[in-house]
Amino acid sequence: MSVDVTETDAKVTRPAPDAGFPQSASPTQDLGRLLIRCPDRPGVVSAVSTFLTGAGANIVSLDQYSTEPVGGMFLQRTAFRLPGLSAACAEFEREFGETVAADFGMDFRLTEASKPKRVAIMVSKTDHCVLDLLWRNRRGELDMTVAMVISNHPDLADEIRPFGVPFIHTPATRDNRAEAEQRQLELLKGNVDLVVLARYMQIITPTFLSEVGAPLINIHHSFLPAFIGAAPYRRAKERGVKLVGATAHYVTEDLDEGPIIDQDVVRVSHQHTTADLVRLGADVERAVLSRAVRWHCDDRIVRHENQTIVF
Amino acid sequence: MSVDVTETDAKVTRPAPDAGFPQSASPTQDLGRLLIRCPDRPGVVSAVSTFLTGAGANIVSLDQYSTEPVGGMFLQRTAFRLPGLSAACAEFEREFGETVAADFGMDFRLTEASKPKRVAIMVSKTDHCVLDLLWRNRRGELDMTVAMVISNHPDLADEIRPFGVPFIHTPATRDNRAEAEQRQLELLKGNVDLVVLARYMQIITPTFLSEVGAPLINIHHSFLPAFIGAAPYRRAKERGVKLVGATAHYVTEDLDEGPIIDQDVVRVSHQHTTADLVRLGADVERAVLSRAVRWHCDDRIVRHENQTIVF
Amino acid sequence: MSVDVTETDAKVTRPAPDAGFPQSASPTQDLGRLLIRCPDRPGVVSAVSTFLTGAGANIVSLDQYSTEPVGGMFLQRTAFRLPGLSAACAEFEREFGETVAADFGMDFRLTEASKPKRVAIMVSKTDHCVLDLLWRNRRGELDMTVAMVISNHPDLADEIRPFGVPFIHTPATRDNRAEAEQRQLELLKGNVDLVVLARYMQIITPTFLSEVGAPLINIHHSFLPAFIGAAPYRRAKERGVKLVGATAHYVTEDLDEGPIIDQDVVRVSHQHTTADLVRLGADVERAVLSRAVRWHCDDRIVRHENQTIVF
Amino acid sequence: MSVDVTETDAKVTRPAPDAGFPQSASPTQDLGRLLIRCPDRPGVVSAVSTFLTGAGANIVSLDQYSTEPVGGMFLQRTAFRLPGLSAACAEFEREFGETVAADFGMDFRLTEASKPKRVAIMVSKTDHCVLDLLWRNRRGELDMTVAMVISNHPDLADEIRPFGVPFIHTPATRDNRAEAEQRQLELLKGNVDLVVLARYMQIITPTFLSEVGAPLINIHHSFLPAFIGAAPYRRAKERGVKLVGATAHYVTEDLDEGPIIDQDVVRVSHQHTTADLVRLGADVERAVLSRAVRWHCDDRIVRHENQTIVF
Repeated sequence: MSVDVTETDAKVTRPAPDAGFPQSASPTQDLGRLLIRCPDRPGVVSAVSTFLTGAGANIVSLDQYSTEPVGGMFLQRTAFRLPGLSAACAEFEREFGETVAADFGMDFRLTEASKPKRVAIMVSKTDHCVLDLLWRNRRGELDMTVAMVISNHPDLADEIRPFGVPFIHTPATRDNRAEAEQRQLELLKGNVDLVVLARYMQIITPTFLSEVGAPLINIHHSFLPAFIGAAPYRRAKERGVKLVGATAHYVTEDLDEGPIIDQDVVRVSHQHTTADLVRLGADVERAVLSRAVRWHCDDRIVRHENQTIVF
Repeated sequence: MSVDVTETDAKVTRPAPDAGFPQSASPTQDLGRLLIRCPDRPGVVSAVSTFLTGAGANIVSLDQYSTEPVGGMFLQRTAFRLPGLSAACAEFEREFGETVAADFGMDFRLTEASKPKRVAIMVSKTDHCVLDLLWRNRRGELDMTVAMVISNHPDLADEIRPFGVPFIHTPATRDNRAEAEQRQLELLKGNVDLVVLARYMQIITPTFLSEVGAPLINIHHSFLPAFIGAAPYRRAKERGVKLVGATAHYVTEDLDEGPIIDQDVVRVSHQHTTADLVRLGADVERAVLSRAVRWHCDDRIVRHENQTIVF
Repeated sequence: MSVDVTETDAKVTRPAPDAGFPQSASPTQDLGRLLIRCPDRPGVVSAVSTFLTGAGANIVSLDQYSTEPVGGMFLQRTAFRLPGLSAACAEFEREFGETVAADFGMDFRLTEASKPKRVAIMVSKTDHCVLDLLWRNRRGELDMTVAMVISNHPDLADEIRPFGVPFIHTPATRDNRAEAEQRQLELLKGNVDLVVLARYMQIITPTFLSEVGAPLINIHHSFLPAFIGAAPYRRAKERGVKLVGATAHYVTEDLDEGPIIDQDVVRVSHQHTTADLVRLGADVERAVLSRAVRWHCDDRIVRHENQTIVF
Repeated sequence: MSVDVTETDAKVTRPAPDAGFPQSASPTQDLGRLLIRCPDRPGVVSAVSTFLTGAGANIVSLDQYSTEPVGGMFLQRTAFRLPGLSAACAEFEREFGETVAADFGMDFRLTEASKPKRVAIMVSKTDHCVLDLLWRNRRGELDMTVAMVISNHPDLADEIRPFGVPFIHTPATRDNRAEAEQRQLELLKGNVDLVVLARYMQIITPTFLSEVGAPLINIHHSFLPAFIGAAPYRRAKERGVKLVGATAHYVTEDLDEGPIIDQDVVRVSHQHTTADLVRLGADVERAVLSRAVRWHCDDRIVRHENQTIVF
């Protein structure tokens, strides 16, 4: 059955982090990503690409977006290959900052694909999101270093540790919430580039948000219409919704109102029980969260006001 | 190119109204639909099917649903073929009512597929929904009789009249809203079995709702999250939503909160302008509304509390 | 973030095997499924439901299908609850066979939901399909007993054994293929009710098929158009397909031509590399295969000629 | 109901042809599109954008693609705004050709968005594809000039002429096929930039293809697996497919094997009759064909070997 031998041999080896982009079949060595943001005016694309060419870089992909037809902000992601990038990085940043960035009043960020993001995953009791992230990471299709998994419950330890990832239990009860948060901050601050809330069912406080020093991505069920508050799936069932979905977003002080990264839905009918909606919703949640984390780790997302540009 | 001659010859002839159901290839003659609703208890399926068999009917399809595992409401739709149905209908109803329905404390409704629903479509200025309904009706895939199209604007007259359907303009200004409503009610009362709001941008008053004497189906844009109020597409764009969609629902006194019939979405990205979102949303709206109207006209929808069961 | 406490507490507990069906919130005890097949004629539904009611059963769900408007085959699945089903099963079968089944020339099959199917999963080197099956089984959303995982490669042992499932390596080289097949048959015959080929990259011989004594479900990549033979993903890339997909089907002697159980696709573009297509295809494969196995284990699939009816 | 007043007022006005792209809210005046193709080597992006900036153009969007990580072909689409483009066009082309294009061994094409493509639509008896194209064009969301509709049958005249488009009947019988083709070529040659086969059920001959002087886009049903030859929907039904779909592609001498532009599918089940499959397939066909034509008319498609790059 299914004797596509070549496919077997070719098995899914670690794809370049830019897979999905032109010229991405090669490894991450010497692959840089330059994200810029400045007021839109003629000459930006030319200035950036001329600088890169002059520095000896070969542009691998280039995506840009203007927030308005005229007079808005200009955002661009350029992936490029520059032999000896790691050694040249600091000098490149300084020079680009003093010339192009200064000329155009530009914010910019330069990252090296060979340095995967350090990621912490926070979970409670359900496993579908965290396992999908760890499995894709082990499989080589999600380029990140999982520094730790933190949970307010001990339940998932045995499922997570076989992936070779530290599982740290920080019990959070009604009485010790502040201490638990401090303990989490000690673990996270300076150690991670991204925190993923993979069905973490505790309130994230403004303190945590301002001190953790890394962006947070959260996954949230989504319905049309929305059911805010307790038991959303039961209420969605009672309302007879025909779609259940999920939204991945960056966490801001407005609970569940941060910039949307990705969304998806699945069709349901009256035949589905509330338990079915939860099950089908979980499939959407893990898919959407994994895509959002992947795009973040590949430096494909630029935030602008309360939205995301996903290049 | 594409020389599938057979398909051409077989062209899309008027499908039976139950197309999509078993045994539906034949015409609507003698095809009945029995919808029942009663407290759930053993023996209902047996009693109904035995009655039908005894009456000389052949069951074409049978779908049922219980709202709870035990002790809920039981809903069933049975399509059947009974030679001479039209003549026998009154007697069938009386007998079924006195026996099975009485025994089980059952509400029921018997319809004949050969008597299409009489439908009024209400529109404002945009044509996508009404044209899709009229086109599917002309094509033979939406079994209804369009009695009239009513609009508060004259704009669409020339597009609609070529379908052979009356277009009636009932101007509604801030000052004459009550009279306009009365005029509409005069046109509708007793003349139609269903009113479809195909992007009709006027408030439906409780008076209209209680007097019109027919169910109303509305189509509404839908987003995750919802954007209630003015300029929803623009606000969805500003929020950076990744899905735009539409919901078809029955109209109740709770504006836009009636039982959902169908929903769907389409993926969008930051590259889409607000105008693109409106355009893509229109494609979803016409598809969802046409499905909802089709299901209603085929007697496939049962309302229960604030939800629909679509058999 | 996401403090929907109720949802957490309600967590995904083992759903009844008929989840997705009316009245399915309760456990599998006393839950029976009766699948029938006979020439279509009036009175079948009535006879079956009257028999069940007479036997003291409460019908939980009933789905039927006729292959033709008139004169075709009639297929029906009835789920019902009968107190003491296990003890009464043999007598029920005998009586039903001698009365209803005999009257209508009916094939039938009676299964108890409380007796999960015994399943063997056969794999080669890729893990996505087998892990998704094992994970859903552990999570309680795929009701089966995984008797063993058999592989022609040792690679996946460490990933599979933590699920508490035997992993058996049956090396198959060019020289020992027949012996390897015999070894597999010894393991499988009489021990399993279903064999799932979860990306098993060896030819299934007619001998194996006729001797294994259980149905086989396979998962296969699918494209529009199809690319038969080696390296299908590379060739799909070269052709510039805009969709990649997967098909789950029963295995027959016609390689990859058996009755289709489920299919799905995902959109791709020129930006995706061949490695991306393989990765995205894997996501579709695991989703489609898991659905197909779930439907089989819930006795929802009836085969008829070269197609499936999925109730 | 649905009182989103702003949306009504804002109604769907003619979007710029680049809608869906950054900075596309303004009209087509002065909007140019430059498509290039050359062997991939460093400096292309920089050279093109520097030329454009030097010419006084403001880059509106820029998309590029390389067929290989190294050593492949480089394709790029640049949309830009240049005051006085129409007058400057010839000079721009000459200069660009002598400098950048010559330096990089580049093919290129420059188009003006203010000059819509002249399109002929060829149909037989079914109306769904042609009506969707004409309706989108009238509505302002498909920027083209429909020069004529040509049909081998008279059936659709009354549906098409109200759109203000010439309907020309070129009867094609077994005996006069060659003359009919000549008549069609006389109508088309030199008069159109694109021919759309909107369910045109006649063979396109190599003669026609080589003489017509414009690309052809065709729409074709698609299944997994494919059913080549007569009655594909009936055979798909017999095989029990779970998806039906459509493929839009450029026509080449390999019948139905030309470069794919877009594809889509819809889920179906055993409950759908063959007539239902035809009906649902038609919905997919019109959606896919309209997207393909839109992308072509917006100069978003580049052909490379047997695939398309859709920017």
